Amino acid sequence: MIDRLMQKIDQCRNPTVVGLDPTYEMIPYGIRMEMIEKYGKTTRAVSKMLLCFNKAIIEGVGDLVPAVKLQIAMYEQYGLEGIRAYLETIVAAKKKGLIIIGDIKRGDIASTAAAYASHLGGVTIEGTHFDIWNEDAVTLNPYLGFDSIEPFLPYCTEFDKGLFLLVKTSNPSGGEIQDLIADGVPVYEHTARLVSQWGRLVMGDNGYSKIGAVVGATYGEQGKSLREKMPHTFFLVPGYGAQGASGNDIRGYFDRDGRGCIVNSSRGIIAAYQKDKKYGAHNFAEAAREAVLTMKKDLEDKG
Amino acid sequence: MIDRLMQKIDQCRNPTVVGLDPTYEMIPYGIRMEMIEKYGKTTRAVSKMLLCFNKAIIEGVGDLVPAVKLQIAMYEQYGLEGIRAYLETIVAAKKKGLIIIGDIKRGDIASTAAAYASHLGGVTIEGTHFDIWNEDAVTLNPYLGFDSIEPFLPYCTEFDKGLFLLVKTSNPSGGEIQDLIADGVPVYEHTARLVSQWGRLVMGDNGYSKIGAVVGATYGEQGKSLREKMPHTFFLVPGYGAQGASGNDIRGYFDRDGRGCIVNSSRGIIAAYQKDKKYGAHNFAEAAREAVLTMKKDLEDKG
Repeated sequence: MIDRLMQKIDQCRNPTVVGLDPTYEMIPYGIRMEMIEKYGKTTRAVSKMLLCFNKAIIEGVGDLVPAVKLQIAMYEQYGLEGIRAYLETIVAAKKKGLIIIGDIKRGDIASTAAAYASHLGGVTIEGTHFDIWNEDAVTLNPYLGFDSIEPFLPYCTEFDKGLFLLVKTSNPSGGEIQDLIADGVPVYEHTARLVSQWGRLVMGDNGYSKIGAVVGATYGEQGKSLREKMPHTFFLVPGYGAQGASGNDIRGYFDRDGRGCIVNSSRGIIAAYQKDKKYGAHNFAEAAREAVLTMKKDLEDKG
Repeated sequence: MIDRLMQKIDQCRNPTVVGLDPTYEMIPYGIRMEMIEKYGKTTRAVSKMLLCFNKAIIEGVGDLVPAVKLQIAMYEQYGLEGIRAYLETIVAAKKKGLIIIGDIKRGDIASTAAAYASHLGGVTIEGTHFDIWNEDAVTLNPYLGFDSIEPFLPYCTEFDKGLFLLVKTSNPSGGEIQDLIADGVPVYEHTARLVSQWGRLVMGDNGYSKIGAVVGATYGEQGKSLREKMPHTFFLVPGYGAQGASGNDIRGYFDRDGRGCIVNSSRGIIAAYQKDKKYGAHNFAEAAREAVLTMKKDLEDKG
């Protein structure tokens, strides 16, 4: 995954990940009404809205970016039908050649982690293999330590998949546990050390591991310091745009060659049409495309 | 939830939670073959197996225990059809009057946590409310701090729901982050302090909060110490039985009145028939019932 991702970033000359995390309110009124008319006020209608919206975004930006990130919670909240939209969006994005990051933030004891690992490895039923989720990489929460991560590693190797482990999150209260000082350094640096260490078990071919780290864009100095401490760890950086960070804030997240990180924007891209009224709701995909190009420019030469 | 849970524990005179976390291998061969014959080698077949197995267990133990805990990973690994079995198991357990704990261990930034909160609060589509998941309580991972928890709180109050937040997990590598020493005490004690503090926002009527803590059974002394430090926090205790702990190990997890914790066993109950060959596979529910009675006895007078 990591080598494919780096290659795609080079091809697109763009380290932007589009976060396909639509809320109900982001979906243009016309699409909402069309689906409600067809399927009633049901979760099935919302599922169809999400898919229709995502497909248009994918069509609009698919040639400009290497990857999309799906926040599974936005789908899971609608139960079975929501999950259906998640799975079908993955199929659509794969058809467009995009790398899929499932933002699932799972984390559990070994036997349970083995079950969650189906996100990368699928399941086998009486000798027949099923892909099931089919993400290229997933995010995981490392609070339970290595045995919650280990079951995913064989798939990183065997199926060329990847992981991004939470190290330093972008939300305001992320520091309550992550910034506690242990042995003179914050907990997130201990987490960083562990993630870096585990990463050596599944190195890619271009200097980076298949185990990356989630490092929020809202902490410029810490991000820079983590880049130095984790030279083999690719960063997935949330918090750009709507959460407040710009290209300048994350300059230090890139390595000397301008590689080493991929920057996610969700609202800032997929809901761009709501911010700039010049587009109108029916041009939401065009607005997303423009937003990606603006972001690309903002990120250029940050390495 | 917490008051209903405590009342049910009193009624059953039993603080046992049955973990409905079946692996494929735990399902008796006869059930497997029946469903494969009907539905082929498909995830739908496995979904039917899981539901059939769970329903029999619920029938076998439902009058002896206050609650069941469903580890969602065991279902999620089979995708849509697995989730269907999860949802239908919840319906069956509710019919039997059991309290449902969804072991989902989610944890994300505020806007995403609001979506995950549908596990407790459902969703509203154009003015129509849908229950969707319908658990009475869920487990959450607090690595992202309070804003990942806050969106669940209105439902604790409004719909009488509850939470159990990871504090000290039962797995071997749980200490890698949780046992780091910050300001002289381990990280899990800091987490405990936060959980206890947040818990005051949603107190129940009987001295315990609607925000509980997950405290593994495999650390007797730490559990006892946490009980003293968190007098208003109910414990959900995994790790009994198959993970190695017995009633004596968790004596200190109970308060002076013999209340304050609920103890989960999964494999030790639902796969009891595989351990004691006297039952045979067709008596798996009877074996589970016997295992619950044995566990009840082991836990008696531990307060």
